[in-house]
Amino acid sequence: MTDLAARYAAARRIAADVGGMALDYFRKWDELTIDVKGHQDFVSEADKNVELAVRAALAQAFPEDGIVGEEGAPTPGTSGFTWVIDPIDGTTNFINGIPQWCVIIACVHQGQTVIGVVHDPVHDELHHAMAGGGAFCNDRPIRCSAKTSLREGSLGVGFSGRTRIEGIKRLINLSCDAGTVFWRNGSGGLSLAYVATGRILGYVEEHMNAWDFLAGHLIVAEAGGRVEPVDADDAIANGGRVVVSGAGVFDAVMGLAKAAYDA
Amino acid sequence: MTDLAARYAAARRIAADVGGMALDYFRKWDELTIDVKGHQDFVSEADKNVELAVRAALAQAFPEDGIVGEEGAPTPGTSGFTWVIDPIDGTTNFINGIPQWCVIIACVHQGQTVIGVVHDPVHDELHHAMAGGGAFCNDRPIRCSAKTSLREGSLGVGFSGRTRIEGIKRLINLSCDAGTVFWRNGSGGLSLAYVATGRILGYVEEHMNAWDFLAGHLIVAEAGGRVEPVDADDAIANGGRVVVSGAGVFDAVMGLAKAAYDA
Repeated sequence: MTDLAARYAAARRIAADVGGMALDYFRKWDELTIDVKGHQDFVSEADKNVELAVRAALAQAFPEDGIVGEEGAPTPGTSGFTWVIDPIDGTTNFINGIPQWCVIIACVHQGQTVIGVVHDPVHDELHHAMAGGGAFCNDRPIRCSAKTSLREGSLGVGFSGRTRIEGIKRLINLSCDAGTVFWRNGSGGLSLAYVATGRILGYVEEHMNAWDFLAGHLIVAEAGGRVEPVDADDAIANGGRVVVSGAGVFDAVMGLAKAAYDA
Repeated sequence: MTDLAARYAAARRIAADVGGMALDYFRKWDELTIDVKGHQDFVSEADKNVELAVRAALAQAFPEDGIVGEEGAPTPGTSGFTWVIDPIDGTTNFINGIPQWCVIIACVHQGQTVIGVVHDPVHDELHHAMAGGGAFCNDRPIRCSAKTSLREGSLGVGFSGRTRIEGIKRLINLSCDAGTVFWRNGSGGLSLAYVATGRILGYVEEHMNAWDFLAGHLIVAEAGGRVEPVDADDAIANGGRVVVSGAGVFDAVMGLAKAAYDA
Protein backbone atom coordinates (compact mmCIF):
# COMPACT_ATOMS: atom_id res chain seq x y z
CA MET A 1 0.00 0.00 0.00
CA THR A 2 1.38 3.43 -0.94
CA ASP A 3 1.72 6.23 1.57
CA LEU A 4 -1.33 7.84 0.01
CA ALA A 5 -3.48 4.71 -0.06
CA ALA A 6 -2.67 4.01 3.58
CA ARG A 7 -3.75 7.51 4.52
CA TYR A 8 -6.94 7.21 2.45
CA ALA A 9 -7.91 4.03 4.25
CA ALA A 10 -7.12 5.59 7.61
CA ALA A 11 -9.10 8.75 6.86
CA ARG A 12 -12.20 6.73 6.04
CA ARG A 13 -11.81 4.53 9.10
CA ILE A 14 -11.26 7.46 11.46
CA ALA A 15 -14.16 9.44 9.98
CA ALA A 16 -16.42 6.43 10.44
CA ASP A 17 -15.28 5.93 14.04
CA VAL A 18 -15.59 9.52 15.19
CA GLY A 19 -18.83 9.93 13.25
CA GLY A 20 -20.34 7.44 15.64
CA MET A 21 -19.00 9.44 18.55
CA ALA A 22 -20.46 12.67 17.17
CA LEU A 23 -23.78 10.95 16.55
CA ASP A 24 -23.95 9.88 20.18
CA TYR A 25 -23.49 13.52 21.18
CA PHE A 26 -26.12 14.63 18.67
CA ARG A 27 -28.69 12.26 20.07
CA LYS A 28 -28.26 13.69 23.54
CA TRP A 29 -27.74 17.22 22.25
CA ASP A 30 -29.94 18.99 24.74
CA GLU A 31 -27.67 17.86 27.57
CA LEU A 32 -24.58 19.48 26.00
CA THR A 33 -22.63 22.24 27.68
CA ILE A 34 -22.30 25.04 25.17
CA ASP A 35 -20.08 28.11 25.22
CA VAL A 36 -21.01 31.04 23.02
CA LYS A 37 -17.99 31.89 20.84
CA GLY A 38 -19.64 34.51 18.70
CA HIS A 39 -22.62 35.17 16.47
CA GLN A 40 -23.91 31.88 15.00
CA ASP A 41 -20.70 30.25 16.06
CA PHE A 42 -20.68 27.87 18.97
CA VAL A 43 -18.14 25.54 20.38
CA SER A 44 -19.52 22.47 22.00
CA GLU A 45 -18.06 19.76 24.07
CA ALA A 46 -18.76 17.48 21.13
CA ASP A 47 -16.73 19.60 18.73
CA LYS A 48 -13.75 19.63 21.06
CA ASN A 49 -13.82 15.96 21.93
CA VAL A 50 -14.35 14.76 18.36
CA GLU A 51 -11.40 16.83 17.19
CA LEU A 52 -9.25 15.40 19.98
CA ALA A 53 -10.24 11.89 18.88
CA VAL A 54 -9.36 12.59 15.24
CA ARG A 55 -6.03 14.14 16.23
CA ALA A 56 -5.15 11.22 18.49
CA ALA A 57 -5.97 8.64 15.82
CA LEU A 58 -3.99 10.48 13.14
CA ALA A 59 -1.01 11.09 15.45
CA GLN A 60 -0.89 7.40 16.27
CA ALA A 61 -1.09 6.25 12.65
CA PHE A 62 1.09 8.95 11.05
CA PRO A 63 3.14 10.64 13.77
CA GLU A 64 5.19 12.63 11.24
CA ASP A 65 2.16 14.29 9.60
CA GLY A 66 0.99 17.82 10.38
CA ILE A 67 -2.55 18.48 11.62
CA VAL A 68 -4.64 21.63 11.28
CA GLY A 69 -8.11 21.75 12.80
CA GLU A 70 -10.88 24.16 13.58
CA GLU A 71 -10.20 23.85 17.29
CA GLY A 72 -6.78 24.11 18.90
CA ALA A 73 -3.32 24.98 17.58
CA PRO A 74 -1.80 23.39 14.45
CA THR A 75 0.53 20.43 14.91
CA PRO A 76 3.56 20.82 12.61
CA GLY A 77 4.74 17.78 10.64
CA THR A 78 7.82 16.57 8.79
CA SER A 79 6.37 14.08 6.27
CA GLY A 80 4.97 16.64 3.83
CA PHE A 81 1.41 15.46 4.54
CA THR A 82 -0.90 17.80 6.44
CA TRP A 83 -4.33 16.78 7.75
CA VAL A 84 -7.02 19.44 7.75
CA ILE A 85 -10.03 18.57 9.88
CA ASP A 86 -13.35 19.95 11.00
CA PRO A 87 -14.77 17.70 13.68
CA ILE A 88 -18.34 18.96 13.24
CA ASP A 89 -19.29 21.20 10.34
CA GLY A 90 -22.74 22.74 10.74
CA THR A 91 -22.35 23.25 14.47
CA THR A 92 -25.39 25.50 14.74
CA ASN A 93 -27.53 22.79 13.18
CA PHE A 94 -25.93 20.21 15.43
CA ILE A 95 -26.64 22.16 18.59
CA ASN A 96 -30.20 22.91 17.53
CA GLY A 97 -31.00 19.30 16.72
CA ILE A 98 -31.14 19.76 12.94
CA PRO A 99 -29.79 16.61 11.21
CA GLN A 100 -27.61 18.45 8.69
CA TRP A 101 -23.96 18.35 9.79
CA CYS A 102 -20.85 16.31 9.04
CA VAL A 103 -17.34 15.30 10.06
CA ILE A 104 -14.65 16.46 7.61
CA ILE A 105 -11.14 15.11 7.10
CA ALA A 106 -8.81 16.26 4.30
CA CYS A 107 -5.16 15.56 3.59
CA VAL A 108 -2.91 18.01 1.74
CA HIS A 109 0.41 17.26 0.03
CA GLN A 110 2.51 19.79 -1.91
CA GLY A 111 -0.28 22.37 -2.10
CA GLN A 112 -2.85 19.83 -3.37
CA THR A 113 -5.69 18.17 -1.54
CA VAL A 114 -5.07 14.46 -2.05
CA ILE A 115 -7.72 12.93 0.24
CA GLY A 116 -11.19 14.18 1.17
CA VAL A 117 -13.77 12.61 3.47
CA VAL A 118 -17.15 14.11 4.41
CA HIS A 119 -19.07 11.84 6.75
CA ASP A 120 -22.76 12.31 7.55
CA PRO A 121 -23.31 9.81 10.36
CA VAL A 122 -27.02 10.59 10.82
CA HIS A 123 -27.71 9.22 7.36
CA ASP A 124 -24.84 6.75 7.23
CA GLU A 125 -23.30 8.46 4.22
CA LEU A 126 -19.51 8.59 4.04
CA HIS A 127 -18.46 10.61 1.01
CA HIS A 128 -14.84 10.21 0.02
CA ALA A 129 -12.26 10.67 -2.70
CA MET A 130 -8.54 10.26 -3.30
CA ALA A 131 -6.90 12.35 -6.01
CA GLY A 132 -7.28 10.51 -9.30
CA GLY A 133 -9.38 7.73 -7.82
CA GLY A 134 -12.94 8.89 -8.33
CA ALA A 135 -15.55 9.86 -5.74
CA PHE A 136 -17.78 7.63 -3.68
CA CYS A 137 -20.62 7.67 -1.18
CA ASN A 138 -19.89 4.62 0.95
CA ASP A 139 -19.09 2.06 -1.78
CA ARG A 140 -21.14 3.68 -4.54
CA PRO A 141 -19.48 5.89 -7.20
CA ILE A 142 -21.02 9.36 -7.29
CA ARG A 143 -21.31 11.99 -10.01
CA CYS A 144 -22.18 15.67 -10.05
CA SER A 145 -25.35 16.74 -11.81
CA ALA A 146 -25.19 16.67 -15.60
CA LYS A 147 -27.71 19.48 -15.90
CA THR A 148 -26.83 22.41 -18.11
CA SER A 149 -29.15 25.15 -16.83
CA LEU A 150 -29.42 26.82 -13.44
CA ARG A 151 -33.18 26.69 -13.90
CA GLU A 152 -33.14 22.91 -13.59
CA GLY A 153 -32.19 22.68 -9.93
CA SER A 154 -31.11 24.27 -6.69
CA LEU A 155 -27.93 26.18 -5.92
CA GLY A 156 -26.44 25.77 -2.45
CA VAL A 157 -25.28 28.97 -0.78
CA GLY A 158 -23.60 29.82 2.48
CA PHE A 159 -22.39 32.75 4.45
CA SER A 160 -20.84 33.46 7.80
CA GLY A 161 -20.07 36.30 10.13
CA ARG A 162 -16.57 36.46 8.59
CA THR A 163 -17.88 38.31 5.53
CA ARG A 164 -20.02 41.38 5.00
CA ILE A 165 -23.66 40.81 4.16
CA GLU A 166 -23.52 42.71 0.88
CA GLY A 167 -22.05 39.73 -0.95
CA ILE A 168 -24.68 37.19 0.03
CA LYS A 169 -27.45 39.69 -0.65
CA ARG A 170 -26.13 40.22 -4.18
CA LEU A 171 -25.71 36.48 -4.69
CA ILE A 172 -29.32 35.75 -3.74
CA ASN A 173 -30.65 38.57 -5.88
CA LEU A 174 -28.63 37.39 -8.87
CA SER A 175 -29.55 33.74 -8.31
CA CYS A 176 -33.24 34.56 -8.24
CA ASP A 177 -32.87 36.64 -11.39
CA ALA A 178 -31.11 33.69 -13.05
CA GLY A 179 -34.11 31.47 -12.33
CA THR A 180 -32.40 29.13 -9.93
CA VAL A 181 -33.58 28.20 -6.45
CA PHE A 182 -31.21 28.88 -3.58
CA TRP A 183 -30.84 26.31 -0.84
CA ARG A 184 -29.04 26.85 2.46
CA ASN A 185 -28.86 24.07 5.00
CA GLY A 186 -26.26 25.63 7.28
CA SER A 187 -23.51 23.06 6.63
CA GLY A 188 -21.20 24.07 3.82
CA GLY A 189 -19.24 20.84 4.10
CA LEU A 190 -22.34 18.70 3.68
CA SER A 191 -23.57 20.92 0.85
CA LEU A 192 -20.34 20.27 -1.05
CA ALA A 193 -20.94 16.54 -0.69
CA TYR A 194 -24.45 17.10 -2.03
CA VAL A 195 -22.94 18.76 -5.10
CA ALA A 196 -20.82 15.68 -5.63
CA THR A 197 -23.88 13.40 -5.45
CA GLY A 198 -25.79 15.65 -7.86
CA ARG A 199 -28.42 16.52 -5.25
CA ILE A 200 -27.82 20.22 -5.76
CA LEU A 201 -26.34 21.86 -8.85
CA GLY A 202 -23.52 23.71 -7.14
CA TYR A 203 -22.39 25.60 -4.08
CA VAL A 204 -21.11 29.13 -3.57
CA GLU A 205 -19.71 30.80 -0.45
CA GLU A 206 -17.66 33.98 -0.26
CA HIS A 207 -15.26 32.67 2.37
CA MET A 208 -14.80 29.26 3.92
CA ASN A 209 -12.02 27.95 6.10
CA ALA A 210 -9.78 25.22 4.69
CA TRP A 211 -11.13 22.57 7.07
CA ASP A 212 -14.65 23.26 5.81
CA PHE A 213 -14.03 22.98 2.08
CA LEU A 214 -10.81 21.22 1.00
CA ALA A 215 -12.32 17.75 1.37
CA GLY A 216 -15.49 18.68 -0.49
CA HIS A 217 -13.51 20.42 -3.20
CA LEU A 218 -11.66 17.22 -4.02
CA ILE A 219 -14.78 15.06 -3.83
CA VAL A 220 -16.62 17.36 -6.26
CA ALA A 221 -13.67 17.39 -8.68
CA GLU A 222 -13.40 13.59 -8.53
CA ALA A 223 -17.17 13.36 -9.11
CA GLY A 224 -16.78 15.09 -12.46
CA GLY A 225 -17.55 18.60 -11.26
CA ARG A 226 -15.58 21.79 -11.58
CA VAL A 227 -14.15 23.97 -8.84
CA GLU A 228 -12.63 27.43 -8.72
CA PRO A 229 -8.94 26.55 -8.21
CA VAL A 230 -7.25 27.18 -4.89
CA ASP A 231 -3.83 26.45 -3.52
CA ALA A 232 -4.44 24.25 -0.51
CA ASP A 233 -1.55 25.71 1.49
CA ASP A 234 -2.87 29.21 0.90
CA ALA A 235 -6.33 28.04 1.91
CA ILE A 236 -4.93 26.64 5.17
CA ALA A 237 -3.43 30.02 5.91
CA ASN A 238 -6.24 32.26 4.72
CA GLY A 239 -9.32 30.28 3.75
CA GLY A 240 -10.84 31.21 0.44
CA ARG A 241 -13.83 31.62 -1.83
CA VAL A 242 -15.63 28.43 -2.78
CA VAL A 243 -17.36 27.99 -6.13
CA VAL A 244 -18.13 24.43 -7.24
CA SER A 245 -20.73 22.77 -9.44
CA GLY A 246 -21.46 20.19 -12.04
CA ALA A 247 -19.51 20.94 -15.20
CA GLY A 248 -22.59 21.88 -17.24
CA VAL A 249 -23.48 24.88 -15.11
CA PHE A 250 -20.04 25.91 -13.88
CA ASP A 251 -19.62 28.94 -16.11
CA ALA A 252 -23.02 30.22 -15.02
CA VAL A 253 -22.30 29.61 -11.33
CA MET A 254 -18.89 31.23 -11.61
CA GLY A 255 -20.56 34.21 -13.29
CA LEU A 256 -22.95 34.61 -10.39
CA ALA A 257 -20.15 34.39 -7.85
CA LYS A 258 -18.01 36.96 -9.62
CA ALA A 259 -20.91 39.35 -10.05
CA ALA A 260 -21.83 38.95 -6.39
CA TYR A 261 -18.41 39.18 -4.77
CA ASP A 262 -16.15 41.05 -7.17
CA ALA A 263 -18.54 43.99 -7.40
CA MET B 1 -63.37 9.06 22.74
CA THR B 2 -64.68 12.27 21.18
CA ASP B 3 -64.97 12.74 17.43
CA LEU B 4 -61.89 14.92 17.57
CA ALA B 5 -59.79 12.61 19.70
CA ALA B 6 -60.60 9.68 17.43
CA ARG B 7 -59.49 11.67 14.43
CA TYR B 8 -56.30 12.79 16.21
CA ALA B 9 -55.37 9.19 16.97
CA ALA B 10 -56.16 8.15 13.40
CA ALA B 11 -54.12 11.00 11.89
CA ARG B 12 -51.05 9.99 13.87
CA ARG B 13 -51.48 6.32 13.03
CA ILE B 14 -51.99 6.96 9.32
CA ALA B 15 -49.05 9.38 9.14
CA ALA B 16 -46.84 6.79 10.81
CA ASP B 17 -48.00 4.06 8.43
CA VAL B 18 -47.64 5.98 5.19
CA GLY B 19 -44.39 7.54 6.40
CA GLY B 20 -42.92 4.08 6.28
CA MET B 21 -44.25 3.65 2.76
CA ALA B 22 -42.73 6.97 1.67
CA LEU B 23 -39.44 6.05 3.31
CA ASP B 24 -39.30 2.84 1.29
CA TYR B 25 -39.70 4.91 -1.88
CA PHE B 26 -37.04 7.37 -0.71
CA ARG B 27 -34.51 4.63 -0.14
CA LYS B 28 -34.95 3.40 -3.70
CA TRP B 29 -35.39 6.91 -5.06
CA ASP B 30 -33.14 6.54 -8.07
CA GLU B 31 -35.43 3.88 -9.47
CA LEU B 32 -38.45 6.18 -9.42
CA THR B 33 -40.33 7.17 -12.53
CA ILE B 34 -40.63 10.95 -12.51
CA ASP B 35 -42.82 13.24 -14.60
CA VAL B 36 -41.86 16.87 -14.85
CA LYS B 37 -44.90 18.96 -13.83
CA GLY B 38 -43.19 22.31 -14.02
CA HIS B 39 -40.21 24.25 -12.77
CA GLN B 40 -39.00 22.82 -9.44
CA ASP B 41 -42.23 20.89 -9.21
CA PHE B 42 -42.24 17.17 -9.79
CA VAL B 43 -44.82 14.51 -9.33
CA SER B 44 -43.52 11.13 -8.47
CA GLU B 45 -45.05 7.75 -8.23
CA ALA B 46 -44.37 7.98 -4.49
CA ASP B 47 -46.36 11.18 -4.12
CA LYS B 48 -49.35 9.70 -5.90
CA ASN B 49 -49.33 6.38 -4.13
CA VAL B 50 -48.80 7.82 -0.67
CA GLU B 51 -51.73 10.19 -1.19
CA LEU B 52 -53.90 7.30 -2.33
CA ALA B 53 -52.96 5.38 0.81
CA VAL B 54 -53.83 8.31 3.07
CA ARG B 55 -57.13 8.85 1.27
CA ALA B 56 -58.05 5.17 1.52
CA ALA B 57 -57.27 5.00 5.23
CA LEU B 58 -59.22 8.18 6.00
CA ALA B 59 -62.18 7.14 3.85
CA GLN B 60 -62.36 3.84 5.67
CA ALA B 61 -62.16 5.37 9.16
CA PHE B 62 -64.33 8.47 8.54
CA PRO B 63 -66.35 7.97 5.37
CA GLU B 64 -68.37 11.17 5.93
CA ASP B 65 -65.31 13.46 6.07
CA GLY B 66 -64.08 15.58 3.17
CA ILE B 67 -60.55 15.20 1.82
CA VAL B 68 -58.41 17.78 0.02
CA GLY B 69 -54.96 16.82 -1.18
CA GLU B 70 -52.15 18.06 -3.33
CA GLU B 71 -52.83 15.38 -5.91
CA GLY B 72 -56.25 14.56 -7.31
CA ALA B 73 -59.69 16.12 -6.95
CA PRO B 74 -61.22 17.03 -3.55
CA THR B 75 -63.60 14.53 -1.95
CA PRO B 76 -66.61 16.37 -0.51
CA GLY B 77 -67.85 15.40 2.98
CA THR B 78 -70.94 15.75 5.15
CA SER B 79 -69.52 15.55 8.70
CA GLY B 80 -68.09 19.06 8.84
CA PHE B 81 -64.54 17.67 9.10
CA THR B 82 -62.19 18.14 6.15
CA TRP B 83 -58.79 16.47 5.89
CA VAL B 84 -56.07 18.44 4.15
CA ILE B 85 -53.08 16.34 3.13
CA ASP B 86 -49.72 16.59 1.42
CA PRO B 87 -48.33 13.10 0.91
CA ILE B 88 -44.74 14.31 0.44
CA ASP B 89 -43.77 17.89 1.14
CA GLY B 90 -40.31 18.75 -0.15
CA THR B 91 -40.71 16.67 -3.29
CA THR B 92 -37.64 18.14 -4.97
CA ASN B 93 -35.51 17.11 -1.98
CA PHE B 94 -37.17 13.70 -1.97
CA ILE B 95 -36.45 13.08 -5.63
CA ASN B 96 -32.88 14.29 -5.31
CA GLY B 97 -32.12 12.10 -2.31
CA ILE B 98 -31.96 14.94 0.23
CA PRO B 99 -33.35 13.75 3.58
CA GLN B 100 -35.49 16.82 4.25
CA TRP B 101 -39.13 16.08 3.47
CA CYS B 102 -42.27 15.07 5.36
CA VAL B 103 -45.79 13.68 5.24
CA ILE B 104 -48.46 16.20 6.29
CA ILE B 105 -51.99 15.58 7.52
CA ALA B 106 -54.29 18.32 8.86
CA CYS B 107 -57.95 18.29 9.81
CA VAL B 108 -60.18 21.38 9.57
CA HIS B 109 -63.51 22.00 11.32
CA GLN B 110 -65.56 25.20 11.08
CA GLY B 111 -62.74 27.22 9.56
CA GLN B 112 -60.20 26.14 12.19
CA THR B 113 -57.38 23.64 11.94
CA VAL B 114 -58.05 21.21 14.77
CA ILE B 115 -55.43 18.51 14.09
CA GLY B 116 -51.94 18.80 12.60
CA VAL B 117 -49.40 16.07 11.93
CA VAL B 118 -45.99 16.53 10.26
CA HIS B 119 -44.12 13.27 9.99
CA ASP B 120 -40.41 13.04 9.13
CA PRO B 121 -39.90 9.30 8.68
CA VAL B 122 -36.19 9.53 7.84
CA HIS B 123 -35.51 10.78 11.36
CA ASP B 124 -38.42 9.05 13.07
CA GLU B 125 -39.93 12.35 14.18
CA LEU B 126 -43.70 12.60 14.18
CA HIS B 127 -44.72 16.15 15.12
CA HIS B 128 -48.35 16.56 16.11
CA ALA B 129 -50.92 18.72 17.83
CA MET B 130 -54.64 18.85 18.53
CA ALA B 131 -56.25 22.24 19.16
CA GLY B 132 -55.91 23.02 22.86
CA GLY B 133 -53.83 19.94 23.59
CA GLY B 134 -50.24 21.11 23.23
CA ALA B 135 -47.63 20.09 20.67
CA PHE B 136 -45.43 17.03 20.61
CA CYS B 137 -42.60 15.36 18.73
CA ASN B 138 -43.39 11.69 19.14
CA ASP B 139 -44.22 11.57 22.88
CA ARG B 140 -42.13 14.58 23.91
CA PRO B 141 -43.77 18.02 24.43
CA ILE B 142 -42.17 20.67 22.18
CA ARG B 143 -41.82 24.45 22.50
CA CYS B 144 -40.90 27.20 20.10
CA SER B 145 -37.70 29.13 20.73
CA ALA B 146 -37.87 31.59 23.64
CA LYS B 147 -35.30 33.87 22.00
CA THR B 148 -36.14 37.54 21.71
CA SER B 149 -33.78 38.72 18.97
CA LEU B 150 -33.49 37.73 15.32
CA ARG B 151 -29.72 37.90 15.79
CA GLU B 152 -29.84 34.85 18.05
CA GLY B 153 -30.79 32.26 15.45
CA SER B 154 -31.86 31.34 11.94
CA LEU B 155 -35.01 32.29 10.08
CA GLY B 156 -36.53 29.72 7.76
CA VAL B 157 -37.63 31.02 4.38
CA GLY B 158 -39.35 29.53 1.38
CA PHE B 159 -40.50 30.42 -2.06
CA SER B 160 -42.06 28.77 -5.07
CA GLY B 161 -42.83 29.37 -8.69
CA ARG B 162 -46.30 30.55 -7.64
CA THR B 163 -44.96 33.94 -6.58
CA ARG B 164 -42.78 36.57 -8.19
CA ILE B 165 -39.14 36.64 -7.16
CA GLU B 166 -39.24 40.24 -5.96
CA GLY B 167 -40.75 39.24 -2.63
CA ILE B 168 -38.14 36.65 -1.69
CA LYS B 169 -35.34 38.96 -2.81
CA ARG B 170 -36.64 41.70 -0.53
CA LEU B 171 -37.10 39.23 2.33
CA ILE B 172 -33.50 38.01 2.11
CA ASN B 173 -32.13 41.55 1.87
CA LEU B 174 -34.15 42.64 4.90
CA SER B 175 -33.28 39.52 6.89
CA CYS B 176 -29.56 40.05 6.32
CA ASP B 177 -29.91 43.70 7.30
CA ALA B 178 -31.70 42.61 10.48
CA GLY B 179 -28.72 40.43 11.42
CA THR B 180 -30.49 37.10 11.17
CA VAL B 181 -29.33 34.08 9.17
CA PHE B 182 -31.70 32.73 6.55
CA TRP B 183 -32.11 29.00 6.21
CA ARG B 184 -33.90 27.23 3.36
CA ASN B 185 -34.15 23.47 3.32
CA GLY B 186 -36.74 23.16 0.54
CA SER B 187 -39.52 21.68 2.72
CA GLY B 188 -41.80 24.35 4.15
CA GLY B 189 -43.81 21.77 6.07
CA LEU B 190 -40.74 20.39 7.81
CA SER B 191 -39.47 23.92 8.46
CA LEU B 192 -42.71 24.72 10.29
CA ALA B 193 -42.16 21.68 12.50
CA TYR B 194 -38.62 22.95 13.16
CA VAL B 195 -40.10 26.25 14.34
CA ALA B 196 -42.27 24.30 16.77
CA THR B 197 -39.25 22.44 18.17
CA GLY B 198 -37.30 25.70 18.50
CA ARG B 199 -34.66 24.59 15.98
CA ILE B 200 -35.20 27.72 13.90
CA LEU B 201 -36.65 31.01 15.13
CA GLY B 202 -39.45 31.31 12.61
CA TYR B 203 -40.56 30.72 9.05
CA VAL B 204 -41.81 33.04 6.33
CA GLU B 205 -43.19 32.24 2.88
CA GLU B 206 -45.21 34.52 0.63
CA HIS B 207 -47.62 31.83 -0.51
CA MET B 208 -48.14 28.25 0.59
CA ASN B 209 -50.93 25.86 -0.20
CA ALA B 210 -53.21 24.77 2.64
CA TRP B 211 -51.90 21.21 2.61
CA ASP B 212 -48.38 22.51 3.12
CA PHE B 213 -48.99 24.77 6.10
CA LEU B 214 -52.22 24.19 8.05
CA ALA B 215 -50.76 21.34 10.09
CA GLY B 216 -47.57 23.22 10.90
CA HIS B 217 -49.53 26.35 11.76
CA LEU B 218 -51.42 24.51 14.47
CA ILE B 219 -48.33 22.73 15.79
CA VAL B 220 -46.45 26.04 16.11
CA ALA B 221 -49.38 27.69 17.87
CA GLU B 222 -49.71 24.76 20.27
CA ALA B 223 -45.95 24.92 20.90
CA GLY B 224 -46.32 28.44 22.26
CA GLY B 225 -45.49 30.25 19.05
CA ARG B 226 -47.40 32.90 17.15
CA VAL B 227 -48.81 32.72 13.64
CA GLU B 228 -50.29 35.26 11.26
CA PRO B 229 -53.98 34.30 11.43
CA VAL B 230 -55.68 32.60 8.51
CA ASP B 231 -59.13 31.18 7.93
CA ALA B 232 -58.55 27.53 7.13
CA ASP B 233 -61.44 27.34 4.65
CA ASP B 234 -60.08 30.34 2.80
CA ALA B 235 -56.62 28.75 2.83
CA ILE B 236 -58.03 25.56 1.30
CA ALA B 237 -59.50 27.64 -1.52
CA ASN B 238 -56.65 30.08 -2.06
CA GLY B 239 -53.59 29.19 0.01
CA GLY B 240 -52.07 32.05 1.89
CA ARG B 241 -49.06 33.85 3.33
CA VAL B 242 -47.30 32.05 6.16
CA VAL B 243 -45.56 33.91 8.98
CA VAL B 244 -44.84 31.96 12.17
CA SER B 245 -42.24 32.13 14.94
CA GLY B 246 -41.54 31.92 18.61
CA ALA B 247 -43.48 34.59 20.48
CA GLY B 248 -40.38 36.61 21.39
CA VAL B 249 -39.46 37.45 17.80
CA PHE B 250 -42.89 37.44 16.18
CA ASP B 251 -43.26 41.20 15.85
CA ALA B 252 -39.85 41.39 14.22
CA VAL B 253 -40.58 38.50 11.85
CA MET B 254 -43.97 39.94 10.96
CA GLY B 255 -42.25 43.27 10.27
CA LEU B 256 -39.87 41.62 7.82
CA ALA B 257 -42.69 39.81 6.04
CA LYS B 258 -44.80 42.94 5.68
CA ALA B 259 -41.85 44.98 4.43
CA ALA B 260 -40.95 42.25 1.94
CA TYR B 261 -44.37 41.39 0.58
CA ASP B 262 -46.62 44.40 1.14
CA ALA B 263 -44.17 46.75 -0.61
